[in-house]
Amino acid sequence: MDAAALWQRYQDWLYYHPGLGFYLDVSRMRFDDAFVEKMQPHFDRAFQEMKALEGGAIANPDEQRMVGHYWLRDPELAPNAEIEQEIVETIDRIEVFASKVHSGEIKPPTAPKFTDVISIGIGGSALGPQFVAEALAPDFPPLAIHFIDNSDPDGIDRIVSKLKDRLSSTLVLVISKSGGTPEPRNGAIEVRKAFSDRNLDFAAHAVAITGTNSHLDQQAKSEGWLATFPMADWVGGRTSEMSAVGLLPAALQGIDIRQMLAGAKEMDVATRTEGIKTNPAALLALSWYFAGNGKGEKDMVVLPYKDRLLLFSRYLQQLVMESLGKEKDLDGNTVYQGIAVYGNKGSTDQHAYVQQLREGVPNFFLTFIEVLSDRQGTSVEIDPGITSGDYLSGFLQGTRQALYENHRDSITVTIPQVDPRMVGALIALYERAVGFYASLVRINAYHQPGVEAGKKAAAAILDLQTRVMQVLQQEKAPLSLAELAEKAGATEKIAAIYQLLRHLDANHRGVVLEGDRGQPGSLKVSFNG
Amino acid sequence: MDAAALWQRYQDWLYYHPGLGFYLDVSRMRFDDAFVEKMQPHFDRAFQEMKALEGGAIANPDEQRMVGHYWLRDPELAPNAEIEQEIVETIDRIEVFASKVHSGEIKPPTAPKFTDVISIGIGGSALGPQFVAEALAPDFPPLAIHFIDNSDPDGIDRIVSKLKDRLSSTLVLVISKSGGTPEPRNGAIEVRKAFSDRNLDFAAHAVAITGTNSHLDQQAKSEGWLATFPMADWVGGRTSEMSAVGLLPAALQGIDIRQMLAGAKEMDVATRTEGIKTNPAALLALSWYFAGNGKGEKDMVVLPYKDRLLLFSRYLQQLVMESLGKEKDLDGNTVYQGIAVYGNKGSTDQHAYVQQLREGVPNFFLTFIEVLSDRQGTSVEIDPGITSGDYLSGFLQGTRQALYENHRDSITVTIPQVDPRMVGALIALYERAVGFYASLVRINAYHQPGVEAGKKAAAAILDLQTRVMQVLQQEKAPLSLAELAEKAGATEKIAAIYQLLRHLDANHRGVVLEGDRGQPGSLKVSFNG
Repeated sequence: MDAAALWQRYQDWLYYHPGLGFYLDVSRMRFDDAFVEKMQPHFDRAFQEMKALEGGAIANPDEQRMVGHYWLRDPELAPNAEIEQEIVETIDRIEVFASKVHSGEIKPPTAPKFTDVISIGIGGSALGPQFVAEALAPDFPPLAIHFIDNSDPDGIDRIVSKLKDRLSSTLVLVISKSGGTPEPRNGAIEVRKAFSDRNLDFAAHAVAITGTNSHLDQQAKSEGWLATFPMADWVGGRTSEMSAVGLLPAALQGIDIRQMLAGAKEMDVATRTEGIKTNPAALLALSWYFAGNGKGEKDMVVLPYKDRLLLFSRYLQQLVMESLGKEKDLDGNTVYQGIAVYGNKGSTDQHAYVQQLREGVPNFFLTFIEVLSDRQGTSVEIDPGITSGDYLSGFLQGTRQALYENHRDSITVTIPQVDPRMVGALIALYERAVGFYASLVRINAYHQPGVEAGKKAAAAILDLQTRVMQVLQQEKAPLSLAELAEKAGATEKIAAIYQLLRHLDANHRGVVLEGDRGQPGSLKVSFNG
Repeated sequence: MDAAALWQRYQDWLYYHPGLGFYLDVSRMRFDDAFVEKMQPHFDRAFQEMKALEGGAIANPDEQRMVGHYWLRDPELAPNAEIEQEIVETIDRIEVFASKVHSGEIKPPTAPKFTDVISIGIGGSALGPQFVAEALAPDFPPLAIHFIDNSDPDGIDRIVSKLKDRLSSTLVLVISKSGGTPEPRNGAIEVRKAFSDRNLDFAAHAVAITGTNSHLDQQAKSEGWLATFPMADWVGGRTSEMSAVGLLPAALQGIDIRQMLAGAKEMDVATRTEGIKTNPAALLALSWYFAGNGKGEKDMVVLPYKDRLLLFSRYLQQLVMESLGKEKDLDGNTVYQGIAVYGNKGSTDQHAYVQQLREGVPNFFLTFIEVLSDRQGTSVEIDPGITSGDYLSGFLQGTRQALYENHRDSITVTIPQVDPRMVGALIALYERAVGFYASLVRINAYHQPGVEAGKKAAAAILDLQTRVMQVLQQEKAPLSLAELAEKAGATEKIAAIYQLLRHLDANHRGVVLEGDRGQPGSLKVSFNG
């Protein structure tokens, strides 16, 4: 395609939203009109399915749940008054709570004001809040946020240690729908112990964001925690950023949550349009389908050219991969669907792996995210008439062009600046695009059966550990791994036993391993507690 | 394969290094003996080529350079006394410099001690130092480090703003081999301006790490910067962590660089072994080759189950993708090689995208990184006899097992703890594995022709901007984009002109755009400077 034809294609396909100042360019995806025509009936169905979803249809059949993240930013759309009221009230309560924390009306027992927040949560209860904090937190927020998003003892220790004396002015958010997910549960127990070790009253620092009447909800109420906020069953973890999960941490950091909601609502309106060319989420889904042949044959590399958006691709990893990575389609056929997502930021990543993107294995398509505004205020000139922001812009355009010439397709999203409204709009855009794509490839975007299976596999390992320790504590003489496995009734799990013993030994838990570590068959195990 | 056979396979293939306490398990990669036998002659050649490389052969033909990162941790191996001496002296100078900074003997003009470091660099000059800082910096380092690794004006402003008054006690490292790479050059100009705006003497805070006699080296010397340290031409950016590039930032943070070097040296010795089964880097290369059929058909997902190792996969993205992502093989055939790398950390990422890994598109293999030691000190019990570290370990084992049963292969690397010696060993392990793999697939791992091409593409955009602005400043009447492109002598670049105008307009650079933004053909452009 020559330059004139490409320019025409650019203009033909350019999507622009005047209210948001938002652009989407899919002209560098090499689909043709026949492809779009072929996809039209599939999109017609996707639009209808989305309408049903927004109307309150049961879209998560595993859990018989509605899927209502779109209602969070437009409560009038909720299917009944009860849900509408819960949304409106929760937002109000979050604003009031954050404002009282900022003013010191809500304060810790032994300090004049809260200075820090530890947010304990994993998956959707961490990735959205982390993305938003990195993108939007002011340089000197009223409360500085720290995330415990894992069950790593050393990682938890590091956060607590760095807070030092400020633990006494730290608010703790425990975010878990059921309260039973191990990582947040473990994190809360560890942090509670850190408070107790310093004679601080954990309950007077703690807030729960959880399902109504969950175990965590009951605990928070019976212990008199500072507050609880709801996690509705019609909001999935990966689409919970506009619920209390995302809004409370944001509000505590002084981020304008009404603007986040407003931006998401505006984008939702734009992505309700029932036309491919006039709906930016449909354009994304179309491009994804084209890139990977509707089978995820190409990875989605996401490169925002803005430091603040560093965590957007990590956020999208969950939203896209957990929604679309499915074994079965809606008819029960085995399809192994999904799209792999990775990326950090441009131009930084150009110096990491654009070498491979330009010249190497062509197993990806790229999404550039361009931010038009460079900074607050004016810029020093690097060369005559050229600023560092011009360089950043030049890197994006140059890379996009060079990749295209090398037959690597790309999408370009352009936003005027990074602010709460735009972040809300970006989240809403991708939530909708994922929903459309799932319709196109006929999968359920709103469940995650593989996550449940993973939890069971881990629980089985812990159960095995308990049995192995019981055997060892009863035995006097050292055992070989084979003997130990037999006594624990787990001969088929000898490899797992070896691995958990290695871990227990390293942590001085009374397990003694004798012999050559490189020859597991030679090892003798005993207990010395 | 039944449990007993799998356990036998585990024992047969388990690699253990007693000195390092390091394990590598490739038993969950489903290669068979015939595959290993077929690969043997290719490994024999790889071992010979590595020996030649270490002996000083010219391995980067583009730049006629030797490749000497292995000498950095064992200077006696250097091919001549001059290089050996430079290595030894540089390490000594780094230690002395860091120690004087810590003691206050080297101090800023207007503060008693340096409290912070801004490290300005991109690619290999950022990723290694960032990984090491996250993995190893003490909770309260003698100097806190901040990275400028991009040309994003807002990102730079944020770092400077957060430092506030501490800018007067901030040391600035400018890391650039030539001094001409735009991102560090722009970063240095921006930071210099921030110093000058506060009447601080930049030169009295600045240190250069650069090639001898580079433009940056000359500037640092003529302006009397605090110090300069060398970037040797025989060290590539992505393997520069054990040079001054990585060691100086590490030493300033109080990290034991001798232990990093010692760990790398020990691993280098282990990976000189000329046998597949007895060489952990060969085992990695074998596994990668098997996973992707020697063509990068599977992505490498890297999941360290330890918060401190969060940035390891970002480090590996560059090391692996820039080294292996090549269009041509050594004979000039078009091969489009490479392996895509992504990942953050476990078990966090289990809640982000293990759904897709377990059930979705099987386009990846996984590398688990296990750290045996949970934390300093003892752990609270979460359940009877079970700690949060046991959970973390259980998540790893359970996920590995469940993925294997679902025909998703994995490698498991096990280290006793995260300390400078282990970090050195991990870096050395992967450097060698990348070298072996490149030999196996017959590509040059030590050049990056695509990066140079990308720089040219960006320079062309900036050149176009200059021409467009010249035209606009001369014209009185508003022009259409087509007219402007013609006057700038760039009718074929009208799309690029539109995009750069949009950026200039958003930054109040005197460009006035009138008309419908969504209809670029309708726009009129003028200058109002």
